[in-house]
Amino acid sequence: MCQINERFRIGEFMEVDIIGTAGEVTDERVAGKNVAVIDVFRATSVMVTAFANGAREIIPVTGIEESFRLRDEIVARHRQSGDNGPVLLGGERKTVIIEGFDLDNSPLRYSPDIVRDATIVMSTTNGTRAVNCARGAAEIYVAALLNADAVARRLGERGEDIVLVCSGRHDRFTIEDALCAGMMARYLGRHYGYKLTDIAWWCADVYRRYEDDLQQALDHCEHYHNIKGRWAEDIAWCLRRNVTDVAPHIVKEGGIRL
Amino acid sequence: MCQINERFRIGEFMEVDIIGTAGEVTDERVAGKNVAVIDVFRATSVMVTAFANGAREIIPVTGIEESFRLRDEIVARHRQSGDNGPVLLGGERKTVIIEGFDLDNSPLRYSPDIVRDATIVMSTTNGTRAVNCARGAAEIYVAALLNADAVARRLGERGEDIVLVCSGRHDRFTIEDALCAGMMARYLGRHYGYKLTDIAWWCADVYRRYEDDLQQALDHCEHYHNIKGRWAEDIAWCLRRNVTDVAPHIVKEGGIRL
Repeated sequence: MCQINERFRIGEFMEVDIIGTAGEVTDERVAGKNVAVIDVFRATSVMVTAFANGAREIIPVTGIEESFRLRDEIVARHRQSGDNGPVLLGGERKTVIIEGFDLDNSPLRYSPDIVRDATIVMSTTNGTRAVNCARGAAEIYVAALLNADAVARRLGERGEDIVLVCSGRHDRFTIEDALCAGMMARYLGRHYGYKLTDIAWWCADVYRRYEDDLQQALDHCEHYHNIKGRWAEDIAWCLRRNVTDVAPHIVKEGGIRL
Repeated sequence: MCQINERFRIGEFMEVDIIGTAGEVTDERVAGKNVAVIDVFRATSVMVTAFANGAREIIPVTGIEESFRLRDEIVARHRQSGDNGPVLLGGERKTVIIEGFDLDNSPLRYSPDIVRDATIVMSTTNGTRAVNCARGAAEIYVAALLNADAVARRLGERGEDIVLVCSGRHDRFTIEDALCAGMMARYLGRHYGYKLTDIAWWCADVYRRYEDDLQQALDHCEHYHNIKGRWAEDIAWCLRRNVTDVAPHIVKEGGIRL
Protein backbone atom coordinates (compact mmCIF):
# COMPACT_ATOMS: atom_id res chain seq x y z
CA MET A 1 0.00 0.00 0.00
CA CYS A 2 2.63 2.47 1.10
CA GLN A 3 5.07 1.79 -1.69
CA ILE A 4 7.39 4.57 -2.73
CA ASN A 5 7.79 4.93 -6.46
CA GLU A 6 11.22 4.84 -8.07
CA ARG A 7 11.01 8.50 -9.03
CA PHE A 8 10.46 9.60 -5.44
CA ARG A 9 13.58 7.83 -4.28
CA ILE A 10 15.75 10.20 -6.21
CA GLY A 11 14.05 13.17 -4.64
CA GLU A 12 11.77 14.30 -7.46
CA PHE A 13 8.47 14.73 -5.71
CA MET A 14 5.48 14.51 -7.97
CA GLU A 15 2.60 16.90 -7.45
CA VAL A 16 -1.16 16.65 -6.92
CA ASP A 17 -3.19 19.61 -8.14
CA ILE A 18 -6.97 20.13 -7.96
CA ILE A 19 -9.13 22.05 -10.44
CA GLY A 20 -12.31 23.32 -8.76
CA THR A 21 -14.73 23.28 -11.73
CA ALA A 22 -14.95 21.76 -15.21
CA GLY A 23 -14.94 25.28 -16.67
CA GLU A 24 -11.45 25.97 -15.34
CA VAL A 25 -9.86 23.01 -17.09
CA THR A 26 -7.35 24.21 -19.67
CA ASP A 27 -5.22 22.05 -21.95
CA GLU A 28 -2.17 23.58 -20.30
CA ARG A 29 -3.17 22.39 -16.82
CA VAL A 30 -3.94 18.80 -17.82
CA ALA A 31 -1.64 18.13 -20.79
CA GLY A 32 0.56 15.11 -20.08
CA LYS A 33 -0.89 14.73 -16.56
CA ASN A 34 -2.86 11.85 -15.10
CA VAL A 35 -6.35 13.09 -14.37
CA ALA A 36 -9.29 11.89 -12.28
CA VAL A 37 -12.69 13.43 -13.03
CA ILE A 38 -15.06 13.70 -10.06
CA ASP A 39 -18.81 14.37 -10.08
CA VAL A 40 -20.10 12.85 -6.85
CA PHE A 41 -23.74 13.94 -7.36
CA ARG A 42 -24.20 11.95 -9.58
CA ALA A 43 -22.46 11.31 -12.91
CA THR A 44 -19.21 9.64 -11.82
CA SER A 45 -20.97 7.82 -8.96
CA VAL A 46 -23.32 6.34 -11.58
CA MET A 47 -20.41 5.26 -13.77
CA VAL A 48 -18.49 3.69 -10.89
CA THR A 49 -21.63 1.87 -9.73
CA ALA A 50 -22.23 0.53 -13.23
CA PHE A 51 -18.69 -0.87 -13.48
CA ALA A 52 -18.81 -2.29 -9.95
CA ASN A 53 -21.99 -4.10 -11.07
CA GLY A 54 -20.39 -5.59 -14.16
CA ALA A 55 -20.84 -3.07 -17.00
CA ARG A 56 -18.38 -3.60 -19.84
CA GLU A 57 -18.12 -0.10 -21.30
CA ILE A 58 -19.61 3.38 -20.92
CA ILE A 59 -19.44 5.74 -23.87
CA PRO A 60 -19.95 9.39 -22.89
CA VAL A 61 -21.82 11.31 -25.56
CA THR A 62 -22.92 14.95 -25.70
CA GLY A 63 -26.04 14.94 -27.88
CA ILE A 64 -29.24 12.92 -27.58
CA GLU A 65 -29.59 12.15 -31.31
CA GLU A 66 -25.96 11.06 -31.35
CA SER A 67 -26.72 8.69 -28.45
CA PHE A 68 -29.55 6.96 -30.35
CA ARG A 69 -27.44 6.70 -33.49
CA LEU A 70 -24.47 5.23 -31.63
CA ARG A 71 -26.69 2.76 -29.77
CA ASP A 72 -28.12 1.49 -33.07
CA GLU A 73 -24.62 1.16 -34.55
CA ILE A 74 -23.39 -0.88 -31.60
CA VAL A 75 -26.51 -3.10 -31.63
CA ALA A 76 -25.90 -3.82 -35.34
CA ARG A 77 -22.23 -4.60 -34.69
CA HIS A 78 -23.15 -6.95 -31.83
CA ARG A 79 -25.64 -8.77 -34.02
CA GLN A 80 -22.98 -9.36 -36.67
CA SER A 81 -20.45 -10.70 -34.19
CA GLY A 82 -22.97 -12.71 -32.16
CA ASP A 83 -22.33 -10.62 -29.04
CA ASN A 84 -25.15 -10.93 -26.51
CA GLY A 85 -24.14 -8.05 -24.20
CA PRO A 86 -26.99 -5.56 -23.71
CA VAL A 87 -26.66 -2.06 -25.19
CA LEU A 88 -28.33 0.58 -23.03
CA LEU A 89 -28.97 4.31 -23.18
CA GLY A 90 -28.45 6.19 -19.91
CA GLY A 91 -28.43 9.82 -18.88
CA GLU A 92 -30.39 12.91 -18.01
CA ARG A 93 -31.36 16.40 -19.00
CA LYS A 94 -32.11 18.71 -16.07
CA THR A 95 -31.79 15.66 -13.78
CA VAL A 96 -34.69 13.83 -15.55
CA ILE A 97 -34.51 10.64 -17.70
CA ILE A 98 -34.41 11.32 -21.45
CA GLU A 99 -37.40 10.05 -23.46
CA GLY A 100 -36.60 6.75 -25.11
CA PHE A 101 -33.61 6.07 -22.80
CA ASP A 102 -33.33 2.93 -20.68
CA LEU A 103 -31.78 4.46 -17.56
CA ASP A 104 -31.68 7.83 -15.84
CA ASN A 105 -28.92 9.33 -13.66
CA SER A 106 -29.71 7.38 -10.50
CA PRO A 107 -26.96 4.93 -9.47
CA LEU A 108 -29.61 2.68 -7.91
CA ARG A 109 -30.97 1.88 -11.36
CA TYR A 110 -27.61 0.50 -12.53
CA SER A 111 -28.04 -2.81 -10.71
CA PRO A 112 -26.16 -5.99 -11.66
CA ASP A 113 -29.18 -7.64 -13.30
CA ILE A 114 -29.50 -4.66 -15.65
CA VAL A 115 -25.92 -3.61 -16.43
CA ARG A 116 -23.92 -6.85 -16.32
CA ASP A 117 -21.79 -7.05 -19.47
CA ALA A 118 -23.59 -4.01 -20.88
CA THR A 119 -22.33 -1.28 -23.18
CA ILE A 120 -23.93 1.95 -21.95
CA VAL A 121 -24.15 5.02 -24.17
CA MET A 122 -24.42 7.83 -21.62
CA SER A 123 -25.37 11.47 -22.01
CA THR A 124 -25.40 13.81 -18.99
CA THR A 125 -25.10 17.58 -18.94
CA ASN A 126 -22.37 18.07 -16.38
CA GLY A 127 -20.46 14.83 -16.00
CA THR A 128 -19.98 14.24 -19.73
CA ARG A 129 -18.65 17.79 -20.05
CA ALA A 130 -16.06 17.33 -17.30
CA VAL A 131 -14.75 14.17 -18.96
CA ASN A 132 -14.57 15.88 -22.34
CA CYS A 133 -12.84 18.99 -20.91
CA ALA A 134 -9.95 16.82 -19.76
CA ARG A 135 -9.39 15.10 -23.12
CA GLY A 136 -5.87 16.52 -23.41
CA ALA A 137 -4.65 14.57 -20.37
CA ALA A 138 -2.35 11.53 -20.55
CA GLU A 139 -4.81 9.29 -18.69
CA ILE A 140 -8.31 10.05 -17.44
CA TYR A 141 -9.84 8.08 -14.57
CA VAL A 142 -13.38 8.29 -13.22
CA ALA A 143 -13.58 8.84 -9.47
CA ALA A 144 -16.26 9.24 -6.82
CA LEU A 145 -16.33 8.68 -3.07
CA LEU A 146 -17.35 5.09 -3.87
CA ASN A 147 -13.91 4.32 -5.34
CA ALA A 148 -11.72 7.25 -4.22
CA ASP A 149 -8.87 5.25 -2.68
CA ALA A 150 -8.83 2.77 -5.58
CA VAL A 151 -8.36 5.54 -8.14
CA ALA A 152 -5.84 7.37 -5.94
CA ARG A 153 -3.88 4.12 -5.65
CA ARG A 154 -3.96 3.57 -9.40
CA LEU A 155 -2.75 7.14 -10.00
CA GLY A 156 -0.15 6.96 -7.24
CA GLU A 157 1.36 3.80 -8.67
CA ARG A 158 2.05 5.63 -11.92
CA GLY A 159 4.23 8.13 -10.02
CA GLU A 160 3.50 11.06 -12.33
CA ASP A 161 1.87 14.47 -11.83
CA ILE A 162 -1.82 14.24 -11.03
CA VAL A 163 -4.71 16.64 -11.53
CA LEU A 164 -8.03 15.97 -9.81
CA VAL A 165 -10.85 17.68 -11.71
CA CYS A 166 -13.98 18.52 -9.73
CA SER A 167 -16.95 18.93 -12.07
CA GLY A 168 -18.65 21.55 -9.93
CA ARG A 169 -22.05 22.85 -10.92
CA HIS A 170 -22.80 25.72 -13.31
CA ASP A 171 -19.07 26.56 -13.22
CA ARG A 172 -19.09 26.79 -9.45
CA PHE A 173 -17.05 24.82 -6.96
CA THR A 174 -19.19 22.37 -4.96
CA ILE A 175 -18.39 20.92 -1.58
CA GLU A 176 -19.15 17.26 -2.35
CA ASP A 177 -16.68 17.11 -5.26
CA ALA A 178 -14.02 19.01 -3.33
CA LEU A 179 -14.35 16.63 -0.36
CA CYS A 180 -13.73 13.70 -2.70
CA ALA A 181 -10.73 15.45 -4.28
CA GLY A 182 -9.41 16.32 -0.81
CA MET A 183 -9.78 12.69 0.26
CA MET A 184 -7.75 11.55 -2.75
CA ALA A 185 -5.09 14.27 -2.36
CA ARG A 186 -4.64 13.31 1.28
CA TYR A 187 -4.26 9.64 0.34
CA LEU A 188 -1.68 10.46 -2.33
CA GLY A 189 0.31 12.62 0.08
CA ARG A 190 0.31 10.02 2.83
CA HIS A 191 0.82 6.84 0.85
CA TYR A 192 2.86 7.95 -2.13
CA GLY A 193 4.69 11.02 -0.85
CA TYR A 194 3.03 13.35 -3.33
CA LYS A 195 3.58 17.08 -2.86
CA LEU A 196 0.25 18.93 -2.65
CA THR A 197 -0.32 22.28 -4.38
CA ASP A 198 -1.95 25.00 -2.27
CA ILE A 199 -5.46 24.08 -3.39
CA ALA A 200 -4.80 20.36 -2.91
CA TRP A 201 -3.57 20.96 0.64
CA TRP A 202 -6.58 23.22 1.28
CA CYS A 203 -9.03 20.51 0.16
CA ALA A 204 -7.17 17.71 1.95
CA ASP A 205 -7.25 19.76 5.13
CA VAL A 206 -11.02 20.34 4.93
CA TYR A 207 -11.58 16.65 4.17
CA ARG A 208 -9.50 15.68 7.20
CA ARG A 209 -11.61 17.97 9.36
CA TYR A 210 -14.93 16.46 8.24
CA GLU A 211 -13.74 12.92 7.56
CA ASP A 212 -15.78 11.48 10.44
CA ASP A 213 -18.88 13.52 9.66
CA LEU A 214 -19.19 14.50 5.98
CA GLN A 215 -22.76 15.61 6.67
CA GLN A 216 -21.47 18.59 8.66
CA ALA A 217 -19.68 19.89 5.58
CA LEU A 218 -22.55 19.01 3.23
CA ASP A 219 -24.89 21.16 5.33
CA HIS A 220 -23.09 24.12 3.72
CA CYS A 221 -23.39 22.75 0.17
CA GLU A 222 -25.94 24.47 -2.03
CA HIS A 223 -26.22 21.64 -4.58
CA TYR A 224 -26.83 19.12 -1.80
CA HIS A 225 -29.76 21.14 -0.49
CA ASN A 226 -31.18 21.45 -3.99
CA ILE A 227 -31.32 17.69 -4.53
CA LYS A 228 -31.61 16.15 -1.07
CA GLY A 229 -35.42 16.15 -1.06
CA ARG A 230 -35.86 14.35 -4.34
CA TRP A 231 -32.86 12.02 -4.38
CA ALA A 232 -32.21 11.17 -0.74
CA GLU A 233 -31.52 7.50 -1.55
CA ASP A 234 -29.13 8.38 -4.39
CA ILE A 235 -27.26 10.77 -2.11
CA ALA A 236 -26.91 8.17 0.63
CA TRP A 237 -25.57 5.77 -2.01
CA CYS A 238 -23.04 8.28 -3.39
CA LEU A 239 -21.70 9.24 0.06
CA ARG A 240 -20.42 5.75 0.89
CA ARG A 241 -16.62 5.69 0.66
CA ASN A 242 -14.42 3.00 -0.84
CA VAL A 243 -17.07 0.36 -1.37
CA THR A 244 -15.49 -0.76 -4.65
CA ASP A 245 -12.02 -1.12 -6.11
CA VAL A 246 -12.96 -0.42 -9.73
CA ALA A 247 -10.89 2.32 -11.39
CA PRO A 248 -12.58 3.02 -14.74
CA HIS A 249 -10.59 5.03 -17.22
CA ILE A 250 -10.99 6.37 -20.73
CA VAL A 251 -9.51 4.16 -23.44
CA LYS A 252 -8.10 5.38 -26.74
CA GLU A 253 -11.28 4.62 -28.67
CA GLY A 254 -13.16 7.10 -26.48
CA GLY A 255 -15.15 4.84 -24.21
CA ILE A 256 -14.65 4.24 -20.49
CA ARG A 257 -13.52 0.77 -19.43
CA LEU A 258 -11.95 -0.99 -16.48
CA MET B 1 -21.08 46.79 13.62
CA CYS B 2 -23.64 44.03 13.48
CA GLN B 3 -26.27 45.94 11.57
CA ILE B 4 -28.65 44.03 9.38
CA ASN B 5 -29.30 45.64 6.04
CA GLU B 6 -32.85 46.49 4.95
CA ARG B 7 -32.76 43.86 2.20
CA PHE B 8 -31.97 41.08 4.64
CA ARG B 9 -35.01 41.91 6.73
CA ILE B 10 -37.32 40.89 3.95
CA GLY B 11 -35.59 37.56 3.60
CA GLU B 12 -33.49 38.14 0.51
CA PHE B 13 -30.10 36.99 1.62
CA MET B 14 -27.25 38.41 -0.35
CA GLU B 15 -24.39 36.14 -1.30
CA VAL B 16 -20.59 36.15 -0.92
CA ASP B 17 -18.69 34.26 -3.61
CA ILE B 18 -14.92 33.79 -3.92
CA ILE B 19 -12.92 33.45 -7.14
CA GLY B 20 -9.69 31.56 -6.54
CA THR B 21 -7.42 33.15 -9.18
CA ALA B 22 -7.36 36.24 -11.39
CA GLY B 23 -7.49 33.99 -14.46
CA GLU B 24 -10.93 32.67 -13.50
CA VAL B 25 -12.56 36.09 -13.37
CA THR B 26 -15.22 36.34 -16.06
CA ASP B 27 -17.43 39.33 -16.76
CA GLU B 28 -20.41 37.12 -15.99
CA ARG B 29 -19.22 36.38 -12.47
CA VAL B 30 -18.44 39.97 -11.48
CA ALA B 31 -20.90 42.05 -13.57
CA GLY B 32 -23.00 44.22 -11.28
CA LYS B 33 -21.37 42.75 -8.15
CA ASN B 34 -19.27 44.50 -5.53
CA VAL B 35 -15.77 43.11 -5.73
CA ALA B 36 -12.72 43.11 -3.48
CA VAL B 37 -9.39 42.23 -5.09
CA ILE B 38 -6.86 40.49 -2.83
CA ASP B 39 -3.13 40.00 -3.39
CA VAL B 40 -1.64 39.65 0.09
CA PHE B 41 1.97 39.02 -1.10
CA ARG B 42 2.31 41.88 -1.98
CA ALA B 43 0.41 44.12 -4.41
CA THR B 44 -2.74 44.94 -2.45
CA SER B 45 -0.80 45.06 0.85
CA VAL B 46 1.43 47.70 -0.76
CA MET B 47 -1.59 49.72 -1.93
CA VAL B 48 -3.33 49.55 1.44
CA THR B 49 -0.10 50.56 3.21
CA ALA B 50 0.33 53.52 0.87
CA PHE B 51 -3.20 54.79 1.56
CA ALA B 52 -2.87 54.19 5.31
CA ASN B 53 0.28 56.36 5.11
CA GLY B 54 -1.46 59.21 3.32
CA ALA B 55 -1.21 58.52 -0.43
CA ARG B 56 -3.83 60.38 -2.46
CA GLU B 57 -4.21 58.13 -5.50
CA ILE B 58 -2.75 54.98 -7.05
CA ILE B 59 -3.11 54.47 -10.78
CA PRO B 60 -2.60 50.83 -11.85
CA VAL B 61 -0.89 50.60 -15.23
CA THR B 62 0.14 47.56 -17.26
CA GLY B 63 3.16 48.74 -19.30
CA ILE B 64 6.40 50.36 -18.17
CA GLU B 65 6.56 52.92 -21.00
CA GLU B 66 2.94 53.84 -20.27
CA SER B 67 3.90 54.39 -16.62
CA PHE B 68 6.64 56.90 -17.50
CA ARG B 69 4.36 58.69 -19.96
CA LEU B 70 1.52 58.96 -17.44
CA ARG B 71 3.89 60.17 -14.69
CA ASP B 72 5.14 62.96 -16.97
CA GLU B 73 1.57 63.95 -17.85
CA ILE B 74 0.54 64.17 -14.21
CA VAL B 75 3.67 66.13 -13.28
CA ALA B 76 2.89 68.64 -16.05
CA ARG B 77 -0.73 68.93 -14.90
CA HIS B 78 0.36 69.46 -11.29
CA ARG B 79 2.78 72.20 -12.39
CA GLN B 80 -0.01 74.03 -14.19
CA SER B 81 -2.39 73.86 -11.25
CA GLY B 82 0.26 74.61 -8.60
CA ASP B 83 -0.26 71.18 -6.98
CA ASN B 84 2.71 70.20 -4.80
CA GLY B 85 1.78 66.54 -4.25
CA PRO B 86 4.58 64.19 -5.24
CA VAL B 87 4.15 61.92 -8.27
CA LEU B 88 5.89 58.58 -7.88
CA LEU B 89 6.48 55.47 -9.95
CA GLY B 90 6.10 52.18 -8.08
CA GLY B 91 6.10 48.54 -9.08
CA GLU B 92 8.06 45.47 -10.01
CA ARG B 93 8.94 43.00 -12.71
CA LYS B 94 9.79 39.53 -11.45
CA THR B 95 9.66 40.98 -7.91
CA VAL B 96 12.47 43.48 -8.64
CA ILE B 97 12.21 47.30 -8.82
CA ILE B 98 11.90 48.67 -12.38
CA GLU B 99 14.80 50.81 -13.60
CA GLY B 100 13.95 54.48 -13.26
CA PHE B 101 11.11 53.83 -10.80
CA ASP B 102 10.98 55.43 -7.35
CA LEU B 103 9.57 52.51 -5.38
CA ASP B 104 9.53 48.73 -5.62
CA ASN B 105 6.89 46.28 -4.39
CA SER B 106 7.85 46.35 -0.70
CA PRO B 107 5.19 47.89 1.58
CA LEU B 108 7.96 49.05 3.92
CA ARG B 109 9.14 51.53 1.30
CA TYR B 110 5.74 53.25 1.18
CA SER B 111 6.33 55.16 4.44
CA PRO B 112 4.43 58.36 5.35
CA ASP B 113 7.39 60.65 4.63
CA ILE B 114 7.54 59.31 1.06
CA VAL B 115 3.90 58.75 0.05
CA ARG B 116 1.95 61.46 1.92
CA ASP B 117 -0.35 63.21 -0.56
CA ALA B 118 1.34 61.34 -3.42
CA THR B 119 -0.08 60.18 -6.73
CA ILE B 120 1.53 56.80 -7.42
CA VAL B 121 1.60 55.29 -10.90
CA MET B 122 1.95 51.58 -10.20
CA SER B 123 2.85 48.68 -12.46
CA THR B 124 3.01 45.13 -11.06
CA THR B 125 2.67 41.87 -12.94
CA ASN B 126 0.05 40.09 -10.85
CA GLY B 127 -1.79 42.66 -8.76
CA THR B 128 -2.46 45.08 -11.60
CA ARG B 129 -3.84 42.20 -13.65
CA ALA B 130 -6.28 41.14 -10.93
CA VAL B 131 -7.63 44.68 -10.65
CA ASN B 132 -8.02 44.94 -14.42
CA CYS B 133 -9.72 41.53 -14.71
CA ALA B 134 -12.51 42.75 -12.46
CA ARG B 135 -13.23 45.95 -14.40
CA GLY B 136 -16.79 44.83 -15.20
CA ALA B 137 -17.82 44.92 -11.54
CA ALA B 138 -20.07 47.58 -9.99
CA GLU B 139 -17.49 48.56 -7.36
CA ILE B 140 -13.93 47.32 -6.88
CA TYR B 141 -12.23 47.55 -3.50
CA VAL B 142 -8.62 46.73 -2.64
CA ALA B 143 -8.22 44.33 0.27
CA ALA B 144 -5.42 42.67 2.19
CA LEU B 145 -5.13 41.21 5.67
CA LEU B 146 -4.12 44.73 6.79
CA ASN B 147 -7.62 46.09 6.11
CA ALA B 148 -9.79 42.97 5.68
CA ASP B 149 -12.53 43.85 8.19
CA ALA B 150 -12.68 47.46 6.99
CA VAL B 151 -13.34 46.40 3.39
CA ALA B 152 -15.75 43.66 4.48
CA ARG B 153 -17.66 46.28 6.50
CA ARG B 154 -17.77 48.67 3.57
CA LEU B 155 -19.05 45.90 1.28
CA GLY B 156 -21.50 44.60 3.87
CA GLU B 157 -23.04 48.02 4.35
CA ARG B 158 -23.93 48.10 0.65
CA GLY B 159 -26.05 44.96 1.12
CA GLU B 160 -25.47 43.65 -2.40
CA ASP B 161 -23.87 40.49 -3.82
CA ILE B 162 -20.13 40.34 -3.21
CA VAL B 163 -17.31 38.58 -5.05
CA LEU B 164 -13.90 38.31 -3.41
CA VAL B 165 -11.21 37.88 -6.07
CA CYS B 166 -7.98 36.18 -4.98
CA SER B 167 -5.16 37.06 -7.35
CA GLY B 168 -3.37 33.76 -6.96
CA ARG B 169 -0.06 33.22 -8.66
CA HIS B 170 0.52 32.01 -12.22
CA ASP B 171 -3.21 31.17 -12.37
CA ARG B 172 -2.98 29.03 -9.29
CA PHE B 173 -4.86 29.41 -6.02
CA THR B 174 -2.58 30.51 -3.16
CA ILE B 175 -3.18 29.99 0.52
CA GLU B 176 -2.43 33.53 1.71
CA ASP B 177 -5.05 35.14 -0.56
CA ALA B 178 -7.62 32.46 0.25
CA LEU B 179 -7.09 32.98 3.99
CA CYS B 180 -7.79 36.69 3.53
CA ALA B 181 -10.90 35.97 1.44
CA GLY B 182 -12.05 33.41 4.03
CA MET B 183 -11.56 35.98 6.81
CA MET B 184 -13.74 38.48 4.93
CA ALA B 185 -16.41 35.90 4.00
CA ARG B 186 -16.65 34.84 7.62
CA TYR B 187 -17.02 38.46 8.74
CA LEU B 188 -19.76 39.09 6.17
CA GLY B 189 -21.65 35.98 7.22
CA ARG B 190 -21.47 36.77 10.91
CA HIS B 191 -22.03 40.52 10.90
CA TYR B 192 -24.25 41.07 7.88
CA GLY B 193 -26.04 37.75 7.49
CA TYR B 194 -24.55 37.06 4.07
CA LYS B 195 -25.12 33.61 2.58
CA LEU B 196 -21.82 31.97 1.62
CA THR B 197 -21.40 30.02 -1.61
CA ASP B 198 -19.70 26.62 -1.31
CA ILE B 199 -16.23 28.04 -1.97
CA ALA B 200 -16.82 30.97 0.40
CA TRP B 201 -17.86 28.62 3.19
CA TRP B 202 -14.86 26.38 2.39
CA CYS B 203 -12.43 29.32 2.72
CA ALA B 204 -14.16 30.77 5.80
CA ASP B 205 -13.93 27.36 7.45
CA VAL B 206 -10.19 27.03 6.78
CA TYR B 207 -9.62 30.59 8.00
CA ARG B 208 -11.52 29.82 11.22
CA ARG B 209 -9.33 26.78 11.76
CA TYR B 210 -6.05 28.70 11.40
CA GLU B 211 -7.21 32.05 12.73
CA ASP B 212 -4.99 31.85 15.81
CA ASP B 213 -1.98 30.55 13.91
CA LEU B 214 -1.87 31.61 10.25
CA GLN B 215 1.70 30.35 10.07
CA GLN B 216 0.47 26.76 10.32
CA ALA B 217 -1.50 27.21 7.09
CA LEU B 218 1.26 29.20 5.40
CA ASP B 219 3.67 26.33 5.95
CA HIS B 220 1.73 24.60 3.14
CA CYS B 221 1.88 27.60 0.82
CA GLU B 222 4.28 27.30 -2.10
CA HIS B 223 4.46 31.04 -2.83
CA TYR B 224 5.25 31.78 0.82
CA HIS B 225 8.24 29.41 0.74
CA ASN B 226 9.46 30.98 -2.49
CA ILE B 227 9.61 34.48 -1.01
CA LYS B 228 10.13 34.03 2.72
CA GLY B 229 13.93 34.08 2.53
CA ARG B 230 14.22 37.30 0.62
CA TRP B 231 11.25 39.29 1.96
CA ALA B 232 10.81 38.13 5.55
CA GLU B 233 10.12 41.66 6.78
CA ASP B 234 7.59 42.34 4.03
CA ILE B 235 5.81 39.10 4.85
CA ALA B 236 5.65 39.92 8.55
CA TRP B 237 4.18 43.31 7.59
CA CYS B 238 1.56 41.82 5.25
CA LEU B 239 0.39 39.21 7.77
CA ARG B 240 -0.80 41.75 10.35
CA ARG B 241 -4.58 41.85 10.41
CA ASN B 242 -6.85 44.89 10.63
CA VAL B 243 -4.19 47.47 11.39
CA THR B 244 -5.92 50.10 9.24
CA ASP B 245 -9.47 51.11 8.35
CA VAL B 246 -8.73 52.39 4.85
CA ALA B 247 -10.92 50.87 2.13
CA PRO B 248 -9.42 52.02 -1.19
CA HIS B 249 -11.58 51.53 -4.27
CA ILE B 250 -11.39 52.21 -7.97
CA VAL B 251 -12.98 55.46 -9.08
CA LYS B 252 -14.57 56.11 -12.46
CA GLU B 253 -11.49 57.79 -13.89
CA GLY B 254 -9.54 54.57 -13.39
CA GLY B 255 -7.39 55.37 -10.37
CA ILE B 256 -7.67 53.95 -6.86
CA ARG B 257 -8.71 56.36 -4.10
CA LEU B 258 -10.08 56.30 -0.61
